[in-house]
Amino acid sequence: MYQARGQRQEHDLLGHKSVPDTAYYGIQTLRALENFDISGITLNFYPDFICGLAKVKKAAALANHDLGNLSDDIKNAICQACDEIVLGSLHNHFIVDMIQGGAGTSTNMNINEVVANRALEIMGKALGDYQYCHPNNHVNCSQSTNDAYPTAIKIALMDANDKLLSEIGTLIDCFNAKAKEFHTVLKMGRTQLQDAVPMTLGQSFKAFASSLKNEIARLKNSSKQFLEVNMGGTAIGTGLNADPKYRERVVVHLGTVTHREIFLADDLIEATHDTGALVMYSSALKQLAVKLSKICNDLRLLSSGPRAGLNEINLPPMQPGSSIMPGKVNPVIPEVVNQIAFKVIGNDLTVTLAAEAGQLELNVMEPVMVESVFESIEILKSGMSTLGKRCIMGISANKRVCEDNVKNSIGIVTALNPHLGYEMCTALAKEALENNRSVYDLVLEKQLMSKAKLEEVLSPDNMVY
Amino acid sequence: MYQARGQRQEHDLLGHKSVPDTAYYGIQTLRALENFDISGITLNFYPDFICGLAKVKKAAALANHDLGNLSDDIKNAICQACDEIVLGSLHNHFIVDMIQGGAGTSTNMNINEVVANRALEIMGKALGDYQYCHPNNHVNCSQSTNDAYPTAIKIALMDANDKLLSEIGTLIDCFNAKAKEFHTVLKMGRTQLQDAVPMTLGQSFKAFASSLKNEIARLKNSSKQFLEVNMGGTAIGTGLNADPKYRERVVVHLGTVTHREIFLADDLIEATHDTGALVMYSSALKQLAVKLSKICNDLRLLSSGPRAGLNEINLPPMQPGSSIMPGKVNPVIPEVVNQIAFKVIGNDLTVTLAAEAGQLELNVMEPVMVESVFESIEILKSGMSTLGKRCIMGISANKRVCEDNVKNSIGIVTALNPHLGYEMCTALAKEALENNRSVYDLVLEKQLMSKAKLEEVLSPDNMVY
Amino acid sequence: MYQARGQRQEHDLLGHKSVPDTAYYGIQTLRALENFDISGITLNFYPDFICGLAKVKKAAALANHDLGNLSDDIKNAICQACDEIVLGSLHNHFIVDMIQGGAGTSTNMNINEVVANRALEIMGKALGDYQYCHPNNHVNCSQSTNDAYPTAIKIALMDANDKLLSEIGTLIDCFNAKAKEFHTVLKMGRTQLQDAVPMTLGQSFKAFASSLKNEIARLKNSSKQFLEVNMGGTAIGTGLNADPKYRERVVVHLGTVTHREIFLADDLIEATHDTGALVMYSSALKQLAVKLSKICNDLRLLSSGPRAGLNEINLPPMQPGSSIMPGKVNPVIPEVVNQIAFKVIGNDLTVTLAAEAGQLELNVMEPVMVESVFESIEILKSGMSTLGKRCIMGISANKRVCEDNVKNSIGIVTALNPHLGYEMCTALAKEALENNRSVYDLVLEKQLMSKAKLEEVLSPDNMVY
Amino acid sequence: MYQARGQRQEHDLLGHKSVPDTAYYGIQTLRALENFDISGITLNFYPDFICGLAKVKKAAALANHDLGNLSDDIKNAICQACDEIVLGSLHNHFIVDMIQGGAGTSTNMNINEVVANRALEIMGKALGDYQYCHPNNHVNCSQSTNDAYPTAIKIALMDANDKLLSEIGTLIDCFNAKAKEFHTVLKMGRTQLQDAVPMTLGQSFKAFASSLKNEIARLKNSSKQFLEVNMGGTAIGTGLNADPKYRERVVVHLGTVTHREIFLADDLIEATHDTGALVMYSSALKQLAVKLSKICNDLRLLSSGPRAGLNEINLPPMQPGSSIMPGKVNPVIPEVVNQIAFKVIGNDLTVTLAAEAGQLELNVMEPVMVESVFESIEILKSGMSTLGKRCIMGISANKRVCEDNVKNSIGIVTALNPHLGYEMCTALAKEALENNRSVYDLVLEKQLMSKAKLEEVLSPDNMVY
Repeated sequence: MYQARGQRQEHDLLGHKSVPDTAYYGIQTLRALENFDISGITLNFYPDFICGLAKVKKAAALANHDLGNLSDDIKNAICQACDEIVLGSLHNHFIVDMIQGGAGTSTNMNINEVVANRALEIMGKALGDYQYCHPNNHVNCSQSTNDAYPTAIKIALMDANDKLLSEIGTLIDCFNAKAKEFHTVLKMGRTQLQDAVPMTLGQSFKAFASSLKNEIARLKNSSKQFLEVNMGGTAIGTGLNADPKYRERVVVHLGTVTHREIFLADDLIEATHDTGALVMYSSALKQLAVKLSKICNDLRLLSSGPRAGLNEINLPPMQPGSSIMPGKVNPVIPEVVNQIAFKVIGNDLTVTLAAEAGQLELNVMEPVMVESVFESIEILKSGMSTLGKRCIMGISANKRVCEDNVKNSIGIVTALNPHLGYEMCTALAKEALENNRSVYDLVLEKQLMSKAKLEEVLSPDNMVY
Repeated sequence: MYQARGQRQEHDLLGHKSVPDTAYYGIQTLRALENFDISGITLNFYPDFICGLAKVKKAAALANHDLGNLSDDIKNAICQACDEIVLGSLHNHFIVDMIQGGAGTSTNMNINEVVANRALEIMGKALGDYQYCHPNNHVNCSQSTNDAYPTAIKIALMDANDKLLSEIGTLIDCFNAKAKEFHTVLKMGRTQLQDAVPMTLGQSFKAFASSLKNEIARLKNSSKQFLEVNMGGTAIGTGLNADPKYRERVVVHLGTVTHREIFLADDLIEATHDTGALVMYSSALKQLAVKLSKICNDLRLLSSGPRAGLNEINLPPMQPGSSIMPGKVNPVIPEVVNQIAFKVIGNDLTVTLAAEAGQLELNVMEPVMVESVFESIEILKSGMSTLGKRCIMGISANKRVCEDNVKNSIGIVTALNPHLGYEMCTALAKEALENNRSVYDLVLEKQLMSKAKLEEVLSPDNMVY
Repeated sequence: MYQARGQRQEHDLLGHKSVPDTAYYGIQTLRALENFDISGITLNFYPDFICGLAKVKKAAALANHDLGNLSDDIKNAICQACDEIVLGSLHNHFIVDMIQGGAGTSTNMNINEVVANRALEIMGKALGDYQYCHPNNHVNCSQSTNDAYPTAIKIALMDANDKLLSEIGTLIDCFNAKAKEFHTVLKMGRTQLQDAVPMTLGQSFKAFASSLKNEIARLKNSSKQFLEVNMGGTAIGTGLNADPKYRERVVVHLGTVTHREIFLADDLIEATHDTGALVMYSSALKQLAVKLSKICNDLRLLSSGPRAGLNEINLPPMQPGSSIMPGKVNPVIPEVVNQIAFKVIGNDLTVTLAAEAGQLELNVMEPVMVESVFESIEILKSGMSTLGKRCIMGISANKRVCEDNVKNSIGIVTALNPHLGYEMCTALAKEALENNRSVYDLVLEKQLMSKAKLEEVLSPDNMVY
Repeated sequence: MYQARGQRQEHDLLGHKSVPDTAYYGIQTLRALENFDISGITLNFYPDFICGLAKVKKAAALANHDLGNLSDDIKNAICQACDEIVLGSLHNHFIVDMIQGGAGTSTNMNINEVVANRALEIMGKALGDYQYCHPNNHVNCSQSTNDAYPTAIKIALMDANDKLLSEIGTLIDCFNAKAKEFHTVLKMGRTQLQDAVPMTLGQSFKAFASSLKNEIARLKNSSKQFLEVNMGGTAIGTGLNADPKYRERVVVHLGTVTHREIFLADDLIEATHDTGALVMYSSALKQLAVKLSKICNDLRLLSSGPRAGLNEINLPPMQPGSSIMPGKVNPVIPEVVNQIAFKVIGNDLTVTLAAEAGQLELNVMEPVMVESVFESIEILKSGMSTLGKRCIMGISANKRVCEDNVKNSIGIVTALNPHLGYEMCTALAKEALENNRSVYDLVLEKQLMSKAKLEEVLSPDNMVY
């Protein structure tokens, strides 16, 4: 067979192909490249995923070595290759499209081939000389795509989730800092966009922080489901062709490799086709998106104006707003976060659809679920980081506007109820609204309370707990 | 066999059952009642649907009579029964749950049985004495659920759509009336919730009207796809067991019965399993919902306040807003329309999911599509009628607030560009913002323009086309 | 003022209205009837919701009594009225549409009015004579719609969830019974719809059971979030106009009344506008729907045929399948459950949209969230009950078909790997496929293994763990 | 100010920044880079979009020249720059993230800056020397982002849609070729996954083609809405600061530049904030996705097996299916198309959410709508091309299996109805099912028909029209 320069020949069930000499991937990765030229989003867009795959392969190698399936040499070479991948040195060899048919087989073969060839190199062998370390026989030993791939996803998502939580934490810090800064700024609370009763601007920002704190708890809770894996189930969960002792060994090693309390699913048949943990985690991401969108809607409302809007806060200007209108500055950062939220909600629907499409012993639609969840995590992280640094930290309060709104508000009659009675308050409210007067002025004018007493009653300490 | 009083015995492939003497429906309807106790939403929630079924049965009877499959007597009795159903006198016999398995077979049997029994009565026979007029052999002659059911849906949806369009038209009239009323109210336009340049409040309301006018066009366009039917295709579109001449005859009769230009699909195999027309029509409903939601969001924003909000318009008070806060009135009508929109968007997803689940020669999920689309139409109709009558017609403008916002706005510098130049305008804008001054006052103070000239430039005719 | 016979007059901020003498509801409920003629789905469609409202009102009355806000007489009458409502005797007075504007104010006023009038009657007063027990001043004392309404929702959903869990449990029992029955039926497992390796039919059914067991855990977990309430926050969470001691008291009483460990939210501002618990619970319902849909898809696949399909199991016939095709029986029960799932997924989107639309200190879109979640719970319950009783329990296995499939399968070569080697197995697989032979026959024909040995290797115990 | 080597200084309202000497983009593009590091998907992922922007800029330059706003020199340089962009030579200077705040301002400034700098170069001026050709004053003359950006989107989507239609056409050709090839292969039709009545495999494939033909019509219809533009409306549709004659001129030029019948919207206020055309076009993409998913589901079902499945067709093997199971080949191409469909449906939800979030005079969420729609188009194109070339063209029929299924089927009794009567057919069906016999054999055994007659009745010509 003709051998092109700089190429090596590999073969599989369907025939032969040339692979670039320097490529750690092999023929099956090349087939995947041809078959799945879909989204342009390749595995190496999501390094956490590649690391998750490598950790699974390392744990499997260690378990296989325990059981006598791999020699010391091969085990050591595989482990070193996996460690290198985790450190990031081989990421550019993971070139398969994230959206792929075959239930992840191409992804699994991409890692199997990269590990095998790097291991060969470590052992001083030629790339492609698979008799010494074979992608299937050695790297994939005792595994099937159907257990290795979903397990790698779970490992990767726990790592990605940790980073996401850290970004949420940073954003919470930003909100808390502002809550403290705006602690004494009295403003009108609004329900149904109508003036309600007073509160402080600090309370608004503290509520944003509280709201996100809940999401940290939900995401932690959801991601715990990823600790349960189906390693050892092989093709459909019956464990055919894997040593019965393998499943316990590999789970122990996986725990050590990942520093997490990985455990084996009770029902491996069910665990092989189930994607419930992914669906619920995606729901938690969606819920975070809903929260961020609500917060950004509020920020845009509160900063509306500067003249014909609420104008209670100022967002820091990030770029000129308009080529026509001099001086216009727009809330571009909250706007982009809103859009991120819409994308995440759309991705969650994709995950739901893919989950529902699972059939019999396997859910073949997992790749698009993974792509969608990772995309959501990445854009949420970018969005929150941008929101915190480029918007929240630069927000200032229009204290005067906020406080004038309270003073001029009709809603403050509510606080006078205990002093003047509901009847009198209703009359005051009506008169204020009809004659465009302030309740404050009316009370003084009618000498219903002394100015001192009135200001005491309407002090922040009295109206806002 | 024991015969309970007030009951008649009927049988089918699975055995015998007692049916109430006075019921026009029969045993298969009863089986459906037992099998599908699901949503509590029965066929008679949607009278248009029942009428659509009756029209299909009438057209089929006429075509079967043409071809010699039905005698004059039976044909006449069936047609009279169908006419009575269209007039509404038998609707309470349509008791099957809208959400059902069997691809609509239970709905088809419900109409077959009601028509058969009412026809028997018309012919002076006993209910249940099906030798003289049989639900399957006569009423369902030359049909299958798989052609009669989707055709009835289409007939029904065209009728329902006409009523929907009429409600949109009425709502458009309301917006146009207000557009005229607010023709001269100058106000600030806002982009990204930030003050932009002036416009009139009339233009805002005219835009609402224009926006809905587009939806009438879209819904008309979408509903035209319902004119294409698959009558005569029987079970899977091959027309097995139906006279080859039947399909043309029944389509002609259906056109006459419905006063619409019904035509036969080119590819009956495809037409039997395809639900594309439903999906696109549901998309058009969703799009209407999106529009209404946007409009209601705007109405709530523009009426926010009364003191600490935009306060450009007043919605008519429809009910007390709060038990705690005297005088609070909330925008309850736009709020309920927003929620209707969310329900319609959710229903559209249900339709999409059901469409995607079609398999091979039939889409068995059609019942939930039909239920969702009818629900959406009904709540959209209620919502738009409520919105027009209970909100839009009672809206008043806060002309003073609107015009003061323009006067005080920095955005009006844009209109001064041609007179003072961009540089000067930028300087004015900056000074106005920083010192909380109005551009109007600054221009006069600096004697950049005469008051007369300034007011001319800032007149509605000059700023708003 | 003219007093119609059988009517009493009531008034509110907007004026007077006649209320039927015998109605426990009052003027504000009537206004809601006029304003919200939307979906036809009224509060009494969901009795759990009405009971939740009554429990909140009782707890509030007890707390108000503790703090001296209510006399013994009024407290006792209110409590008795609430108890009666929980027992179901007044449900037909809850007539407001589930989909409503006003953030639930109409629902809150419906319960306030019914409790007040029934309490008046208990105290021997005339209905409508609110000086002795007022809907707002007494029944709604220390509350706002914005704390009472969401709290009632949470109480109601915990009750509804308990019933849902019970239905899941029953369905799991059905699957487990069949898992036991089909314990020894060997069949082919399939991945990507392609023959894979053997398993037992019992394992398939056990996986269905396991899969649902996970959902019980998820729903329990999600519903725990409903224990956190915002009682005492009043309008926006600042607690304005409520005794500072009230919030702790009412939570204690609510715990006693509901027998649940209710606790107060940390940040009442955030808790007032947050709907995260609803969103996550709806996600868990969606996840259950996804599971049920997957299971029903599998049941329909496995029972496809009877001749030109997989035909591994028989579903019990529930109704004649076709008027054209004699003997056709369709999987109508799984089909209806699929459609329920699509409806639930659509409802979840509605909930998401409504959650995202929350603004500032309140989410005014809560009514449609509640309607959607209750609808989903009810149809899921109906669907699972129907599925268990009318389908699963009647399923029988086509043991012969299942086992022949295994015997004839090429996939069993996988089990021969350890005995004949991968090379030989590949050759056998190829020959079997090309010549349409069975691996079993080929092995014997080629005398590669004895019949005894072969049957031992291919025994269920050896292939399926 | 310090000037770094290889950098030029630019400034805007917010201050100064260094821009690489060789960059055609300028300071505002750089600000966008900093603000929107979100998705990694930049404008140049979608060349059609860049070309759309360039065409709008060219048409605007021509109109501005007509009205005396631009000199010949500047107009010529701008037009040449735009032509070069359309030819693709400057695409790598479009580096802003597709997901961005600011309603597209950053995208508009990216094209303004690239055109201005390239025009400067053409005129022999230094990059950044904006006095001779300014991004805002010249390139953006008479425009606002709010009219130029949405117009460019529409131009771009019409171009992208043409390419999409071409891919659909190619796929239809593939299905039609197979329809012809399988014209005579008789097989069982299935409704509700149960054996129904016979049809040909050719009819199945023709139905796939017909089904897609409908989508071409729908997409064409939907994309026609993009012909309506709002050029000349400037900031909010009032046309402030644009010559009243400009709008007609620019539309004429845009028609010439694009070779399409572009026309001006009636209501420019409405047209400025409306995104209905995008929503409906996205719905049509979703509908295409639903169709493709249904087709791929069918392909996977029909090719299931090879032994324990339907096995009516063979998909061409594209890659080894499993590392454990020798000889397993999976339907990887249809699987990836299913996943593409899920992604497109998710994207459609994103578009819906963004459309609903429009407020007042502008929809600021348009960037994420555009990103989602372009992504959907691209992956649909990839998916259809892959499906046609790598799957459909290689499909072969298992004629024997298909025909045996018909022969053995009970469903063929339906065709005997006219000859043996419904009663006899029912009896035959029952006996066949219970005793596992074929109807064909039973008819001959009982000598109900001659073999010749029976074969004639059951011939394709008689059963399938």
